[in-house]
Amino acid sequence: MGVYSLYSGISDRAEPCESLKANTVFATGLEGRRVLLSSEQLDAFREGADIEQETHRRGIRGAYFVCASLDVPSGDSEQWRIVADVEQSQAMVVAQRDWLRKEQDIEDAIAGSIDMCDDELARIMAAGDAFQVSAEEEVTTHHYANVLFNVLRGGIFDDQYHVSARDLSQTVRHFNRRVHARNSEFLEGLPDTLEFSQLVSMVRAQQDPQLERLCYEYLPITFGRRHGDPSRPWNRFAIQLKDESGARLLSYQGNWRDIFQNWEALTFSYPEYIESVIAKFVNASTMDGYNPYRITKKGIDWEVEDPEDPWSYIGYWGDHQIIYLLKLLELSEHFHPTRLSQLLRQPVFSYANIPYRIKSLEDLLQNPKDTVVYDHALAERIEERVADNGADGKLVHDRSGDVYRVTLLEKLLVPLLAKLGNLVIGGGIWMNTQRPEWNDANNALVGHGLSMVTLYYMRRYIRFLQQLIASQEETVELSREVSEWLGDTASALESVRPLLGNGTISPEQRFETLQELGLAASGYRETVYRQEGFSGKVKQSPDAIRKMLDDALVAIDHSIAVNRRIDGLYNAYNLLGLDADKAHVDTLYPMLEGQVAVLSSGAISARETCSLLDTLFESEIYRSDQHSFMLYPDRTLPGFFDKNRIAEQDVVAIPLLARMVAEGDDRVVSQDVEGNYRFSAEFRNSSDLDRRLDALASEYGEEIATARGDLFKLYEKVFNHRAFTGRSGAMFGFEGLGSIYWHMVSKLLLAIQENFFAARDSGADEETCSRLGSLYYAVRDGIGFNKTPAEYGAFPTDPYSHTPKHAGAQQPGMTGQVKEEVLTRFGELGVRVRDGAVHFEPGLLRAVEFSREARSFRYLDVNGDWQDIDLPAAALAFTWCQVPVVYQLDEKATPGLTLVFEYDGMEESRNLSLSESMSAELFQRSGRIRQINLTLRADHLLTN
Amino acid sequence: MGVYSLYSGISDRAEPCESLKANTVFATGLEGRRVLLSSEQLDAFREGADIEQETHRRGIRGAYFVCASLDVPSGDSEQWRIVADVEQSQAMVVAQRDWLRKEQDIEDAIAGSIDMCDDELARIMAAGDAFQVSAEEEVTTHHYANVLFNVLRGGIFDDQYHVSARDLSQTVRHFNRRVHARNSEFLEGLPDTLEFSQLVSMVRAQQDPQLERLCYEYLPITFGRRHGDPSRPWNRFAIQLKDESGARLLSYQGNWRDIFQNWEALTFSYPEYIESVIAKFVNASTMDGYNPYRITKKGIDWEVEDPEDPWSYIGYWGDHQIIYLLKLLELSEHFHPTRLSQLLRQPVFSYANIPYRIKSLEDLLQNPKDTVVYDHALAERIEERVADNGADGKLVHDRSGDVYRVTLLEKLLVPLLAKLGNLVIGGGIWMNTQRPEWNDANNALVGHGLSMVTLYYMRRYIRFLQQLIASQEETVELSREVSEWLGDTASALESVRPLLGNGTISPEQRFETLQELGLAASGYRETVYRQEGFSGKVKQSPDAIRKMLDDALVAIDHSIAVNRRIDGLYNAYNLLGLDADKAHVDTLYPMLEGQVAVLSSGAISARETCSLLDTLFESEIYRSDQHSFMLYPDRTLPGFFDKNRIAEQDVVAIPLLARMVAEGDDRVVSQDVEGNYRFSAEFRNSSDLDRRLDALASEYGEEIATARGDLFKLYEKVFNHRAFTGRSGAMFGFEGLGSIYWHMVSKLLLAIQENFFAARDSGADEETCSRLGSLYYAVRDGIGFNKTPAEYGAFPTDPYSHTPKHAGAQQPGMTGQVKEEVLTRFGELGVRVRDGAVHFEPGLLRAVEFSREARSFRYLDVNGDWQDIDLPAAALAFTWCQVPVVYQLDEKATPGLTLVFEYDGMEESRNLSLSESMSAELFQRSGRIRQINLTLRADHLLTN
Repeated sequence: MGVYSLYSGISDRAEPCESLKANTVFATGLEGRRVLLSSEQLDAFREGADIEQETHRRGIRGAYFVCASLDVPSGDSEQWRIVADVEQSQAMVVAQRDWLRKEQDIEDAIAGSIDMCDDELARIMAAGDAFQVSAEEEVTTHHYANVLFNVLRGGIFDDQYHVSARDLSQTVRHFNRRVHARNSEFLEGLPDTLEFSQLVSMVRAQQDPQLERLCYEYLPITFGRRHGDPSRPWNRFAIQLKDESGARLLSYQGNWRDIFQNWEALTFSYPEYIESVIAKFVNASTMDGYNPYRITKKGIDWEVEDPEDPWSYIGYWGDHQIIYLLKLLELSEHFHPTRLSQLLRQPVFSYANIPYRIKSLEDLLQNPKDTVVYDHALAERIEERVADNGADGKLVHDRSGDVYRVTLLEKLLVPLLAKLGNLVIGGGIWMNTQRPEWNDANNALVGHGLSMVTLYYMRRYIRFLQQLIASQEETVELSREVSEWLGDTASALESVRPLLGNGTISPEQRFETLQELGLAASGYRETVYRQEGFSGKVKQSPDAIRKMLDDALVAIDHSIAVNRRIDGLYNAYNLLGLDADKAHVDTLYPMLEGQVAVLSSGAISARETCSLLDTLFESEIYRSDQHSFMLYPDRTLPGFFDKNRIAEQDVVAIPLLARMVAEGDDRVVSQDVEGNYRFSAEFRNSSDLDRRLDALASEYGEEIATARGDLFKLYEKVFNHRAFTGRSGAMFGFEGLGSIYWHMVSKLLLAIQENFFAARDSGADEETCSRLGSLYYAVRDGIGFNKTPAEYGAFPTDPYSHTPKHAGAQQPGMTGQVKEEVLTRFGELGVRVRDGAVHFEPGLLRAVEFSREARSFRYLDVNGDWQDIDLPAAALAFTWCQVPVVYQLDEKATPGLTLVFEYDGMEESRNLSLSESMSAELFQRSGRIRQINLTLRADHLLTN
Repeated sequence: MGVYSLYSGISDRAEPCESLKANTVFATGLEGRRVLLSSEQLDAFREGADIEQETHRRGIRGAYFVCASLDVPSGDSEQWRIVADVEQSQAMVVAQRDWLRKEQDIEDAIAGSIDMCDDELARIMAAGDAFQVSAEEEVTTHHYANVLFNVLRGGIFDDQYHVSARDLSQTVRHFNRRVHARNSEFLEGLPDTLEFSQLVSMVRAQQDPQLERLCYEYLPITFGRRHGDPSRPWNRFAIQLKDESGARLLSYQGNWRDIFQNWEALTFSYPEYIESVIAKFVNASTMDGYNPYRITKKGIDWEVEDPEDPWSYIGYWGDHQIIYLLKLLELSEHFHPTRLSQLLRQPVFSYANIPYRIKSLEDLLQNPKDTVVYDHALAERIEERVADNGADGKLVHDRSGDVYRVTLLEKLLVPLLAKLGNLVIGGGIWMNTQRPEWNDANNALVGHGLSMVTLYYMRRYIRFLQQLIASQEETVELSREVSEWLGDTASALESVRPLLGNGTISPEQRFETLQELGLAASGYRETVYRQEGFSGKVKQSPDAIRKMLDDALVAIDHSIAVNRRIDGLYNAYNLLGLDADKAHVDTLYPMLEGQVAVLSSGAISARETCSLLDTLFESEIYRSDQHSFMLYPDRTLPGFFDKNRIAEQDVVAIPLLARMVAEGDDRVVSQDVEGNYRFSAEFRNSSDLDRRLDALASEYGEEIATARGDLFKLYEKVFNHRAFTGRSGAMFGFEGLGSIYWHMVSKLLLAIQENFFAARDSGADEETCSRLGSLYYAVRDGIGFNKTPAEYGAFPTDPYSHTPKHAGAQQPGMTGQVKEEVLTRFGELGVRVRDGAVHFEPGLLRAVEFSREARSFRYLDVNGDWQDIDLPAAALAFTWCQVPVVYQLDEKATPGLTLVFEYDGMEESRNLSLSESMSAELFQRSGRIRQINLTLRADHLLTN
């Protein structure tokens, strides 16, 4: 065994730095082998010289070579292994050495160890319903990859619905030591493992709403690791399964705007945790309606500005707020139709207290790119609270020093009000929190950009809220300041509503409404920032909320209507032009995400969906070489010599410039030998011009002050930075020019699937449904698993982040695609849940998925035992909540569904649905349902 | 021409980032060539396919290939060029394109441009006396390389002794706007260019001591760049020759402990600036006796701790302080015997005000590794002062707000007192300012280490001061606090002097003296820190200073005597052991720098020098494969399994450990399968143990507190971190184990040369002198230029930083070797200066350097004209202060010296010396002396 270690850690500090770990390598096989620990004898070996076994080398880089002479008869083969491990402590190396000396059959032991690891991974995958059998093996393999990467991002629930009392108690203690202390008897008295449902009822009986709050958001997740692009230097990934003392560890960590995606797909297999995920989500949103940067098992995180780190920055990533919360809410409504209504009035939710302070509306209007202040004093107070009592110190507190609690309704209203506070009617939601609303590639739109994408999703969110509170009659309790904000917002929306007929409203009116809405939000923020919380609760009539939602919907529908382009596509982002008391809206080029969002909004009909998709296939967004869609059209950009050109008359018009050019001072503008005027090559943006002018002030005095305004105007005229969108405008990598961003394509796929089912549910004509089905598969055909490795430039069955113009797909697994496609796959199989009941409606499933041959399906049951099912010909199989579902296509048999129970036989039905109670058995992974068999006919399937 | 540009800068921030520069490539030659801008056709080309000219590519990495078909007749050749340039603005690219279109003979123009650059560099090199002709071409080429790298590090004086009034005025303004303002008339009235000597007298006439101070330290240096190891990520190098508006720029920047070395060698060719360099040096030292981190044209810099940067750290690099200042002082005494005495009483020097605060003696004794506090409030005040009035804000001010001025004598005393404040008699100078005293590789000695190296150099410094003030009779003015410190130090030294007979003193006495000296320094520091300056001046009798110096010399000589090892080598560093009221001294292994320092100290005789060097060649420090010396012996280190072993009885003796091991808790100690106990592999040093114990406190309660002390003792017993020296102890790269550090070898060379001349001067016997000469060349033989490229692993004539054990020499030019060898080379040529007069004493020169053939010597005269001299056979030539010196070996002729004058003929003399006035003409580069010819006989040269 080669042992590679440093004599000491590598450090330049004046302190000792022991290095007590080693890397090890050993070999098996190759009788009479000699081992080299360095590459120093390689040249000799190449020249045929004899090799001497090396036993010790120092002061050089290590290596491990094995050398032996072999006679391999023709057709025969020889096998050997080289086994390496890293970061082994001395005790581990000694144990390894001991094992190598004593183990009788090392080969066998290694093979056994590999098998054990395979099995462990397979069990995790099985718990996420990764295994399926269909005639289209690339489809099921791709599904496995999607589940794998979804779990690798968001993690998986540890052990069915079992909760470890130890982890629960540690978690409560970590968040709130006082709550832990007063419930320590209860927590210590819990059995080592208990059912999650049991826990919820036991905790309720404790009548400690703070404990309840913590248990509602408790997520026993393991195997997760952080999200992020591995090519960025700050992203380091690790799956932590053990704590420092070697004990099993539950852990997760993810960017807020990523991890809830993965949990959405995950809860489809663990539906009982949906409301816990919702609680985790809303408990982490702020009083001003935004959210932290990162969610971890240990609590929330936010970005902190570090003047030494050019990548560091602060601000709120407003994207995903509305739609991802909504998707979770919808899931809950489908699986558990009564739970949200119960939580709506229950004050067991919290506010995150992030030390960001969004400036006043006046300031936002002044400089919409510099809007968020880091409140260092507050940050210090928060740190003290955390040190004093635990991670709950990062939440807003009430006057008694407890975590301030509000209802779910309040938590659902606040982010909506925050978005409405930035509503530019006919334009979109003004993005002014220093970070992009939606995708990174357009991050530079922040400040001047208006997000129609967010507005499209708000439509669906408002419709959902309307239905959720439709039957609420009694008054609800809201924080006083939220209620006032609601009132002010409502009155702004009410007053503009009559003006929203056909056609656009005037720029003056648009500004006035923006101002009214913005002042409502701005005043609210000022109050709650000053108080660092709320002044109390008031009663609120649900009618007022309903009225506000209705008026908001009108403004939104008006805005959607005017954002339909002549070609039938919809605007994704617009530019806001502020000019005294006018708010203008300028459009940008079309983008894929605008179409995805409008298709998800519920605003357009099934027929329009079809024609929009047809237009998309015809548009410049389509990339025929990949049969798929870019985020936006590729564009020709001005060449090196064409950019940065200033017209002579513009130079002459500014006396300072004229003088400087005449004097040959090229620190602002220079003239090249061909006579063209250009700004200094040192200026990256107008702030560099600003700094240069400051530096020149001592030489040019008053002239600088006189010219400054005109110079900035000229600079903007030359570069048009107001319309600068970010990477999407001038870069090629990542989501840059010509790139396909696969997450967006899979979002499109899901949106089409939603529209397909919506069309069927609403009784649309067969032709439209069939057309939507075809379009669904036309889009799906563009996704990697349908391609050859040469076409895709990567492993086709794996999901990837993006495909740049001139290279293969990049960054395996690093994509939200995995979440979308876990959901679309269940949709393809016709798995639907409504009002707590399961319905199998395989109207999007294609007959080609049914295998001609009999096959076998292996799955892991909820008790942790591997099982095999013999599938007949013309069948396919998958699991859901770890229960196997077998579809058989049989034109002669009577269609129907058979439930196979654990102990008491089976139950047959003509109906392809489960009762609510049977559905609950499935969702709760009770083990009562052992298998679900469906007999189908071709007319159940997609007809084309 | 290929133009390679980005469409936009690469940034993830939400702001535009223009990229307005391009890289360009063009080709000449190859008729009918086609050009490829990418590598995409390469595979096709390799397969013999036709290549299409590319004109535009985007979204990919660029490339530049030229393709043409050629028929080259046998023996004929074809030539072409590919010319590339980077970071060109649009105007530059347009100009380049225009030039390519219009230029008639591009080849010729390129050749002309290259010649011009060559000439420019040659002129800089000539000004540094880089050109020599000798029969040993490797010697003169190596000398050229040394001058080149010396200039590339420290820069060169811009234009003989000419000073640009513009740069001077800007410099004064940069440092002190008020001083500039009140002298603006004078500064603006200066001629554009003036002689430096003229400037000094004109400034004196202004009678503004602050202006005088600034002009004394003014250095018109150009072509310098910062020092540092290019493999460290924070080191970026640039030679700045123009400011942002393209105007000529004088600039230098260097680590304090590097740049003065280069200036020492540089002033040998520009002696009139020696005192300016001394002023720059002493003006930058602090009240507490240390120095800033970096010297730049813009002022001083210090390190600031950045919690995010693991490499950042603060502290005083105490090394080089004494010896480099002393070398400059000695130069001044040799060239200008009266100047230092004049400055001794002139209050035109300043103190740097670095916001570091060295802790009290009590604290130093408590934790000698954590001793320097960054005073943030002071740092802010300094920043404000700089903003208000200029870079002089970084200096100590008096009560009226002016820069506080003191005499040279005070500036020379303070660093000595600071070192004496840490004197451990018989041990060395205690290193307790968080940074190493001398070389980086031993940086971890800081805290427990004692530097004998510094003590050896202090001996020479004290001897110099004694001579410098020997004839001072009148009282001198010192700052009151310095005078008190001097008094306290003197009384401590006086009281210990009687005890310093033969043999060592007791640990108690050693501690008592350290405490007395340390308290004197500590009390002084406390006062001047509190006052942020001094309370006034007092008169000081020179006798008291002389008495203190005498007593200090006795303590030092005693310390040197007891640090002679049995083998005749001298200790370099020792370890301090503090134990209540005792100070123990433990020795370490021998190191090369101890021998270099003791050889430079003046403490040992010529004969002992010879035997010390003989011992060194026999010692483990000698590396026979490189015929040279490592910094310390290579050592066998404990293997991976041998380190970190704890005896069982030591585990059992600590109840907490016994319990943890029994319970299988391996967070502090674990037992491996073979039964060995080891500390956790996570512990890099005792602070990790400390943190782990803190973390365990909640579980183990009181047991932790009980065990803590014993655990740290056990940890130290296992790892012996007190004796940890740094890289020298366990690393192999840089100055690590087995490395030769060439700067130290060249220091040894210089030390031997000094001893050689000292022996001759003191009339030592011929045999000893000859033996020293042989030893000199024996050491010189180990230096690269005597080796083959294979032996050296690098270009032999270039100087390199170090040669690790298992690789060739590393880091060309990045070595102080260049400075030592510029000086040794002039010594080899016998160039000596005493009492302001030049003496040619080529007693170390070897006859082999005289060429057998007649040759030609090209040099640049002080007027900037290239000149050629025809050298006869048996001659060699070099320049000094840009005046050519020709040695001719002629056994038949009468030895003598001929001065060739510019206008009025020549002057012959039998004496191989110049008069003081002729020496001054040479030093001042007046042009009066056109050439110096010497006729020598073999008995002038080294006889062996």
